[in-house]
Amino acid sequence: MSAKNLQELLDQAGDTVELLRNSQLGAYIYPVVPYEFSNFRREVIAWRETAVLYDQSHHMVNLFVSGPDALRLISDTGVNSVANFPVDSAKQFVPVSPEGGVIGDGILFREAAEQFVFVGRAPVANWLTFRAGQGYDVELRLDPRSPSRPYGKAVTRDLWRFQIQGPRAWEIIEKVNGGPVEQLRFFRMAHMNVAGERVRTLRHGMAGAPGLELWGPYETYDKVRDAILEAGREFGLEPCGARAYACNTLESGWIPSPLPAVYTGEELRPYREWLGADSYEATNALAGSFVSDRIEDYYVNPWDLGYGSFVKFDHDFIGRDALAAVVTETQRRKVTLAWNAEDVARLLAAPVDLDGPGYQFFDLPNANYGSSNYDSVTDADGDLVGLSMFTGYSANERRALSLATVDPDVPLGAEVRVIWGEPDGGTRKPTVQPHEQLAVRAIVSPAPYSVMARESYRPGWRTAATV
Amino acid sequence: MSAKNLQELLDQAGDTVELLRNSQLGAYIYPVVPYEFSNFRREVIAWRETAVLYDQSHHMVNLFVSGPDALRLISDTGVNSVANFPVDSAKQFVPVSPEGGVIGDGILFREAAEQFVFVGRAPVANWLTFRAGQGYDVELRLDPRSPSRPYGKAVTRDLWRFQIQGPRAWEIIEKVNGGPVEQLRFFRMAHMNVAGERVRTLRHGMAGAPGLELWGPYETYDKVRDAILEAGREFGLEPCGARAYACNTLESGWIPSPLPAVYTGEELRPYREWLGADSYEATNALAGSFVSDRIEDYYVNPWDLGYGSFVKFDHDFIGRDALAAVVTETQRRKVTLAWNAEDVARLLAAPVDLDGPGYQFFDLPNANYGSSNYDSVTDADGDLVGLSMFTGYSANERRALSLATVDPDVPLGAEVRVIWGEPDGGTRKPTVQPHEQLAVRAIVSPAPYSVMARESYRPGWRTAATV
Repeated sequence: MSAKNLQELLDQAGDTVELLRNSQLGAYIYPVVPYEFSNFRREVIAWRETAVLYDQSHHMVNLFVSGPDALRLISDTGVNSVANFPVDSAKQFVPVSPEGGVIGDGILFREAAEQFVFVGRAPVANWLTFRAGQGYDVELRLDPRSPSRPYGKAVTRDLWRFQIQGPRAWEIIEKVNGGPVEQLRFFRMAHMNVAGERVRTLRHGMAGAPGLELWGPYETYDKVRDAILEAGREFGLEPCGARAYACNTLESGWIPSPLPAVYTGEELRPYREWLGADSYEATNALAGSFVSDRIEDYYVNPWDLGYGSFVKFDHDFIGRDALAAVVTETQRRKVTLAWNAEDVARLLAAPVDLDGPGYQFFDLPNANYGSSNYDSVTDADGDLVGLSMFTGYSANERRALSLATVDPDVPLGAEVRVIWGEPDGGTRKPTVQPHEQLAVRAIVSPAPYSVMARESYRPGWRTAATV
Repeated sequence: MSAKNLQELLDQAGDTVELLRNSQLGAYIYPVVPYEFSNFRREVIAWRETAVLYDQSHHMVNLFVSGPDALRLISDTGVNSVANFPVDSAKQFVPVSPEGGVIGDGILFREAAEQFVFVGRAPVANWLTFRAGQGYDVELRLDPRSPSRPYGKAVTRDLWRFQIQGPRAWEIIEKVNGGPVEQLRFFRMAHMNVAGERVRTLRHGMAGAPGLELWGPYETYDKVRDAILEAGREFGLEPCGARAYACNTLESGWIPSPLPAVYTGEELRPYREWLGADSYEATNALAGSFVSDRIEDYYVNPWDLGYGSFVKFDHDFIGRDALAAVVTETQRRKVTLAWNAEDVARLLAAPVDLDGPGYQFFDLPNANYGSSNYDSVTDADGDLVGLSMFTGYSANERRALSLATVDPDVPLGAEVRVIWGEPDGGTRKPTVQPHEQLAVRAIVSPAPYSVMARESYRPGWRTAATV
């Protein structure tokens, strides 16, 4: 019998890890935005050298939350403090499960005292929506992400959403605005003029260079986009296609894709019964070499993802007790792994190796092959020391990079191994062809990424197998 | 002053080769159809091992030609004989310029005595449209290709167009039809039933396995597609995405992209004055290592492309005299080049080589970076022996392949070199990043491709440099 909700689906499957690792969803897609405008290398280089127009209009959900209990809902649901959350500011909002596992994260905008918008992947929006039904006086409106394969059908959203980023961004912003634009503090909101429209802005930035996120009604999409591109031409502004877009996070250090920690625990059973059998949580493809029979082993906590500083015990929230019991010093931490060029060359060249093993295809610049990616990070003895969670290629660095969470005793500069590819020839995901695994050497580096100079490498740390 | 037509554009540019080699059009795109459904390797393997649904609904123009002079227009315009062109059959239609250069090619369907449809790239449709105005009693209707970057706007066509191909194709066709389907001769048309619709078919095939092309009104697109995919599931039918689609020709041996031979010659001046400054011919990006200052050196004749047998002197047609003067024995011929795995590995691994030269990106499975691709093919002395015109990767062969036209004395089995990348760091095309060239070894092989066994290699033929 076909499952009516996530809980039924899990009950029928019997093995959550097996279910998600063999999801038939296919690749995680950044829809509608053209794949490339010029070529992905040029677009990637533009965000470091000139400026880039990111189009974030289609791949995220917007959840509009308003009403007298909106702030209380947020405060009760997220690890973040709302003590300092003025109107016209935003936070990186992180809710966790009662056991303290991250459900997801995204940007929460406070547009008015009782008016918020959450922007991000579905799991946080789903959780807020469910929670809102538990006695909060709020109104919700969901603007779902665009279809992954619209196939020529018209697509519309409530809002378009752009970012202008890069070293020349502010010059473009002021030219578009027709005058100076005040550089507010990071994550503060304001307004600017674009093509005769007054649009909302969020102060953003990349690698120290100030930038803005902009949004407005979808009806003005073309007009606004054309005006920005036209103004930006003299500054080398490039529109960024879907292919280049996803890999910007390898340089900026945000892990977009933790598995939502909602599959276990009796307290969350009503939520799982509420979530559809076609929800993100039910169809989400789990990919990579890390395999455990316990789905809980895929959960991460705020410290694992670098969000420890967001956790504030100045308020009550779901998961508070669990997080309060965490010994923060022993948690994993977020790092960038700089993959060994020689090993990556083996992966990249494997498609034309008639005799050698086939490896899981390492696509450029995005090598992920699931919605949530979990590759084992090991020391030279093969002992697990972390999880690599987002993998690809930076044309700026000319390196394969991944974002990972590693044990606290793994120092910057250490050489670790990322196991690329799934065991036993691979799962039945449509993104996977039969393959062998390869242990790829990688240097533990900061997140956001910066090159670990050769003298700072730590060859002493478990980089050679101890027999 | 901005050019009003192709001729004005050429006059203003002064250098046609330079103009087209620096076209700002960007990559040649196969629009609307999703990039990948599962993954491109799986979709490529399906057409050899099980079956595949090609979706050709969006990347080609349809030109509907009808009226009392339709056949005369076709006969006067193409090299093909119409002596044997019954209703319900199709031809690979090839018009040439007065000087005998190929303008393009595509499939011409005869739907009724006075009713034809041309399906292919724009240059042939443009030429037929211009020619129709020169005293032919015909009606024309153009159904242009879908926009390359529809960006969420609704896309519609007059017709959907699919192919069901592969070793299991006929079983699927008969299941969809609900009974036996007669296997007519190649390129004969008939009908079949799909989901309650009576649709048109063209007998097709791949690698000896019979298949069909099907088309019908665009309103029935979803219904027909769903019905075929549903019926095909038990036979391993895979929908083929845009990424995999373009590389099927590397195995089947069709060169999709000759440069239309229309840029020169006084006789064609009125045509160039008729063609828009935004036409395919005006914006077409010319890519690759072969550079001549004479645009005529990019023209190919029917023999170069393997269409010599289509040329029939049983009728008068534009270019007849030029073709009649061709000494067919000394023309180039179409071959497949099987690229050396070691050299291709260098190209594929170059993105992570911090110190080495950057090569022009070899994207998988389609490595072309223009609308028309011309890479020099040389012998070991560096002497030009041919042109490589469509390049990519076959996941079935696990090789990089290209389709080329080579001098008649270059034997099958010879090792040649394809010069990959453009000279002098590359042109200003948006698909090009600054790079160095690499001479890639390749084995001259049949088209359609089959592996040249090692014992049949011809090491004797100019494969080692003669000093």
